[in-house]
Amino acid sequence: MKAEIIAVGTELLLGQVVNTNATFLSEELADLGIEVYYHTVVGDNPKRLEQLLVEADGRSELIVLCGGLGPTDDDLTKDTVAEHIHRSLVQDEQALTRLHEFFKFSKNKMTENNLRQTLMIEGGIAVQNPTGLAVGTLITENETTYLLLPGPPNELNPMFKQNARPLLEDLFPQAEQLISRVLRFYGIGESQLVTELKELIDSQTNPTIAPYAKPNEVTLRLTAKIADELTGQQLLDDLEAKVMNKVGEYFYGYGDDNSLVKVTVDELKKSGKTITAAESLTAGLFQSTLGDIPGVSEIFQGGFVTYSIGTKERFLGIDPALLEKEGTVSEACAIAMAEQARKVAEADLAVSFTGVAGPDELEGQPAGTVWIGLAQKGQPTIAVLQQFNRDRKYIRQSAVMKGLDLVRRAVVKKN
Amino acid sequence: MKAEIIAVGTELLLGQVVNTNATFLSEELADLGIEVYYHTVVGDNPKRLEQLLVEADGRSELIVLCGGLGPTDDDLTKDTVAEHIHRSLVQDEQALTRLHEFFKFSKNKMTENNLRQTLMIEGGIAVQNPTGLAVGTLITENETTYLLLPGPPNELNPMFKQNARPLLEDLFPQAEQLISRVLRFYGIGESQLVTELKELIDSQTNPTIAPYAKPNEVTLRLTAKIADELTGQQLLDDLEAKVMNKVGEYFYGYGDDNSLVKVTVDELKKSGKTITAAESLTAGLFQSTLGDIPGVSEIFQGGFVTYSIGTKERFLGIDPALLEKEGTVSEACAIAMAEQARKVAEADLAVSFTGVAGPDELEGQPAGTVWIGLAQKGQPTIAVLQQFNRDRKYIRQSAVMKGLDLVRRAVVKKN
Repeated sequence: MKAEIIAVGTELLLGQVVNTNATFLSEELADLGIEVYYHTVVGDNPKRLEQLLVEADGRSELIVLCGGLGPTDDDLTKDTVAEHIHRSLVQDEQALTRLHEFFKFSKNKMTENNLRQTLMIEGGIAVQNPTGLAVGTLITENETTYLLLPGPPNELNPMFKQNARPLLEDLFPQAEQLISRVLRFYGIGESQLVTELKELIDSQTNPTIAPYAKPNEVTLRLTAKIADELTGQQLLDDLEAKVMNKVGEYFYGYGDDNSLVKVTVDELKKSGKTITAAESLTAGLFQSTLGDIPGVSEIFQGGFVTYSIGTKERFLGIDPALLEKEGTVSEACAIAMAEQARKVAEADLAVSFTGVAGPDELEGQPAGTVWIGLAQKGQPTIAVLQQFNRDRKYIRQSAVMKGLDLVRRAVVKKN
Repeated sequence: MKAEIIAVGTELLLGQVVNTNATFLSEELADLGIEVYYHTVVGDNPKRLEQLLVEADGRSELIVLCGGLGPTDDDLTKDTVAEHIHRSLVQDEQALTRLHEFFKFSKNKMTENNLRQTLMIEGGIAVQNPTGLAVGTLITENETTYLLLPGPPNELNPMFKQNARPLLEDLFPQAEQLISRVLRFYGIGESQLVTELKELIDSQTNPTIAPYAKPNEVTLRLTAKIADELTGQQLLDDLEAKVMNKVGEYFYGYGDDNSLVKVTVDELKKSGKTITAAESLTAGLFQSTLGDIPGVSEIFQGGFVTYSIGTKERFLGIDPALLEKEGTVSEACAIAMAEQARKVAEADLAVSFTGVAGPDELEGQPAGTVWIGLAQKGQPTIAVLQQFNRDRKYIRQSAVMKGLDLVRRAVVKKN
């Protein structure tokens, strides 16, 4: 089942709007077992859209079009598709009734051009729009199915989920479903992960393994295509075991809607331990990242940004002679910051960050040099040296991620 | 001058990633006077990419490809384009040197597949990647120009701006140039800005006015299309004066590569005043945002994250009876936090943030309720109440932006 998505709108080609509709529809169609082979964006130009439809006819069984169903003169998708398959446009009564109700309710004046929105392609199925006025059409002609949807995402999304998706499910019933599982890794780059798993990736056909790199982490999506859910989950379990055998030490959690900070906060909550931080180069980014998670106050009461020698001394009570002797970008400084932060904030754990965010070097050390300290009640304090690359922003984010991972590993060990 | 953009990556067709590259590139190309007629997305499939190149050759003079320059086996864009124009891949020495330096510095193990990233198409111009390892190529063959860029936006964007854009400007010089100027506004929404400027926007043809909404700010791009730079600048000056006459009170700075935090830090530097902060709901985000700016240590030495009542008391010396009586989400708390932070940190100014980040309400006040305090040496301390909408992340970011604007206005007034 091959599909493609055509978005119509000059505003997309000018870079004024991001084509999130293609992303949304792709995810939905993948979920229906329909494979999307192309996304195309074309302007509000009937001739170029017609050329595209000719190409698409030859390579796709389902063509989803979005945009160009509105009331203005440049909304030409419906007319162009109708002409392409030699049909006319007809009135959809339900959409017309809704239009009249809408304008009665809103008390705005209805301009004549709004009526265009209530037309559908003759012989098709009307797809009603729960949050807007433009009606869609689903129509099959010469073994190609066309689905016409409006451009605004706040109309397209509910319309697809409520009304178009059930029609597609009927039209293209699935013998097999896609069952997928996302594994998340920190501390290993994409190229290294792929190298470690090369044999496995090369030999796998069902389930498949798809790596995806994000800043400072890599995810693997395992996907089984199968008739029965239980067998699918078993296949994923088996594959996951093989993956973990190779790179399990870098695994930190499951799922698309997850993150290292979420897992770290969850582990802290489970352990009942509180955390604080003393941040130099990260300047509050570690604590602010904790603050992204609702309910973090259970394990985080506050901490320090100690950007200068003076605040390291005054806020944390660190001996200035130590900083003088060892420098601020040093193991000794990271250890002192973590230990003192833990004491002053009365927390179970404390993380510290000191280093060179760049672009210039500091104390003779290059940008990207970072010491991260971890102090824990009843444990020796440690500090690790990291060398991060790229720009200031990335260096600071990388430091925060490494700090989270140190905390997670320390807490998980004991939970 | 017709162009199209081809993004290569199965993750786009699966809906896992939004094609923001096409949006960014479209905006940049429009700025160069190059018209984009199509965006296409195709998977990591050489055969389908080759078919697409054949089509694109017939309709576009410039084809920009993004994605598929990475180290893994499914990164096939470079190979496919090279084969399409009957060229081979050759080593780019500069990219190779950078790769070796990167792995030497990072101390990670370099896997063999990374070398693929340093190859370019024979006979083309190498386009260096300032924030990544994959080198790009610009090459013209049979009157079609191909520009190959990597997929990750944090690599593609700087690479295009710094290295690809100047090459395209040389290759496709414009008879008329586009002279543009960006004005940045904080504290006014896009719809209101557009309403205020409606007459001006409707009546302008050259220069044009293009509004663009970003989270918590709006920019206006004024663009003159003209042969001579001096006349263009004069046109922009005249239009800017008219714009400022209407909405000047919200203006904070010029330029694409600018931000409210940059302007605020610059103003603080000019004034020679130091700043600190005490952050509750923002949990370090204000200070971390200051930390984004290189050289901020000149005016920022450190501050506090006081998420709980206990840390407000211990770190800042705030009377717990006051918090008990007034609540932490209160004017009194914001004022006490700002005043005490200023004293303890020995700074000229202090900002404080206390409020409800959500999703749940706090002390009977809804999510989005935020008090922001500002203490200044020799001035009465003030606190302003804000009601922000949307989610936790947006509420916290909105609070930080408002805090920056308070500081900027306070300092600018006196500079």
